[in-house]
Amino acid sequence: MIGVRAQGGAPVLDRSLPDPRPSSGQVLVRVRLAGICGTDRAVLQGYGGFSGVLGHEFTGEVIEAPGDAGWVGTRVVGRITLACGTCDPCRRGRPGHCENRRVLGIRGVDGVFAERVSIPAANLVAVPPSVPDEAAVFAEPLAAAMRICEQVAFDRTDRILVIGAGTLGQLSARVLAALGCRPVVAARHLGQQRRLEAAGISWIGEGEAAVRSYDRVVEATGSPGGFAEALRRVRPEGVVVLNSSVNEPVPVDLSALVVDEITVVGSRCGPMTAAVEWLARGKIDPTDLIEARFPLTEAPAAFERAAAPGAMKVLLTC
Amino acid sequence: MIGVRAQGGAPVLDRSLPDPRPSSGQVLVRVRLAGICGTDRAVLQGYGGFSGVLGHEFTGEVIEAPGDAGWVGTRVVGRITLACGTCDPCRRGRPGHCENRRVLGIRGVDGVFAERVSIPAANLVAVPPSVPDEAAVFAEPLAAAMRICEQVAFDRTDRILVIGAGTLGQLSARVLAALGCRPVVAARHLGQQRRLEAAGISWIGEGEAAVRSYDRVVEATGSPGGFAEALRRVRPEGVVVLNSSVNEPVPVDLSALVVDEITVVGSRCGPMTAAVEWLARGKIDPTDLIEARFPLTEAPAAFERAAAPGAMKVLLTC
Repeated sequence: MIGVRAQGGAPVLDRSLPDPRPSSGQVLVRVRLAGICGTDRAVLQGYGGFSGVLGHEFTGEVIEAPGDAGWVGTRVVGRITLACGTCDPCRRGRPGHCENRRVLGIRGVDGVFAERVSIPAANLVAVPPSVPDEAAVFAEPLAAAMRICEQVAFDRTDRILVIGAGTLGQLSARVLAALGCRPVVAARHLGQQRRLEAAGISWIGEGEAAVRSYDRVVEATGSPGGFAEALRRVRPEGVVVLNSSVNEPVPVDLSALVVDEITVVGSRCGPMTAAVEWLARGKIDPTDLIEARFPLTEAPAAFERAAAPGAMKVLLTC
Repeated sequence: MIGVRAQGGAPVLDRSLPDPRPSSGQVLVRVRLAGICGTDRAVLQGYGGFSGVLGHEFTGEVIEAPGDAGWVGTRVVGRITLACGTCDPCRRGRPGHCENRRVLGIRGVDGVFAERVSIPAANLVAVPPSVPDEAAVFAEPLAAAMRICEQVAFDRTDRILVIGAGTLGQLSARVLAALGCRPVVAARHLGQQRRLEAAGISWIGEGEAAVRSYDRVVEATGSPGGFAEALRRVRPEGVVVLNSSVNEPVPVDLSALVVDEITVVGSRCGPMTAAVEWLARGKIDPTDLIEARFPLTEAPAAFERAAAPGAMKVLLTC
């Protein structure tokens, strides 16, 4: 089958990939739509040393379900972490932090930039008919944005700054707004600013936020400088939510963390079922965040487009 | 009067310091006992560019109180932060994070390694007769240890590691034990280990703690490597409490924070009134943590002793 592999730092189209075979407890999904994420680009640059089929954001249709035929024909999205079920975090109810985990398109298992993918039935979340593919494909990043609010208490009166106005920053701001908060987003690019305006969310230019002023700062830049910028803007005793995985160690002024008693919370994957529910109830409409759509066979061009300054979500039609 | 100034990286005895004069709202305290802290040594090494009289841990007796004669003769300890009362954090009830703050012996105002010191009456906490000077002088570091439990929830079943068995590490472990928790302390030196045993607290050798295993890690090493060590030991979704102020930026693997969803909480000054109350009720007896006692005139030798590997609290009799 056709798919996109990480090879020598570039996304390479491979027309002779072996067809995935669902192992026990797995289903085979025909991928309909997949999204390119900053993490995919980080993987290409060496993050985690992964070299299989890329991609983890997707929606598709179950076409084989050896263990549970009831799934066949169901439109689904999927949790990206494949847990072992037996390690300490798994036994303690935290399969997302499984010590032996594989992660779709990121660690140890082929991802979704392909015609078909095998994943555990336990990872599936059914997509209701009211949610179009173009919205469902955002379930994974929307869940990541919702995760922030599971980890940190946000009050409606909090001064909240979101740094970075790419897909995750935009979704984080929309989730916070849906919860009654009034975030401000530091947005560099015109297209990002216009989308925020259309969604009724305040923005300011990059670097214009007041220093030492925000109760909560959500770092969603995807770049190594994002954390230092967040530390500049947060108030003493404030909270920084850190989303960007960065390949190399970043110099951090730890005395600022101690003296100002800052809390830093690392955040990763979120609640997919809740994300699909929000999409179904129309609490969030992410479809204006689509920058462009490419057929899977044009994945290299899609990656180039996704890397352009200010680019929003680029989708692959599989 | 006699006092100890920071000068050229060393503590210098000065016999001709001007006598401090209490300004409005201040009292004059005759210092009886003062403690040398890791922060004093960091100040000598350039932290904050401070060059006045050193020292912030003390107990003493009020000898002049122009605005409120009722204080005269009272034995006291004192909060170390002098707040402006008008900035945003002050108005929001967080004077410890005053934007214009001065800090005894650390920032903008002379400290307590002297015969006498002027401080605001608002900073004083009276010491009950049942608390000897040798215990009262620990009120400031004890408050810092108690601060940790104001910021982070510790459950009795939590696996808790304290890294560093100096004064702050020892006090942190004792506070946690007093709250019903069962911390383990990573202790390098025999004297530290023996003190832990005497206090009924478990210890393990340096570097022997299991990796990725602890629900809570309290970093109290005072050294640049402490944070990375804490990150090695904490479990995914765990919490690291960071206490060490380090002068230079430290390289941090931010992706570990994000992927493992670690929370990092910077921690500084704590509740002095509660600390004195704990001392008065005998919940903590810190006096076995005294390493040695020197007269103020032998401060340089006292600093040398405090810098020795494994040294505990060194006191100055003023």
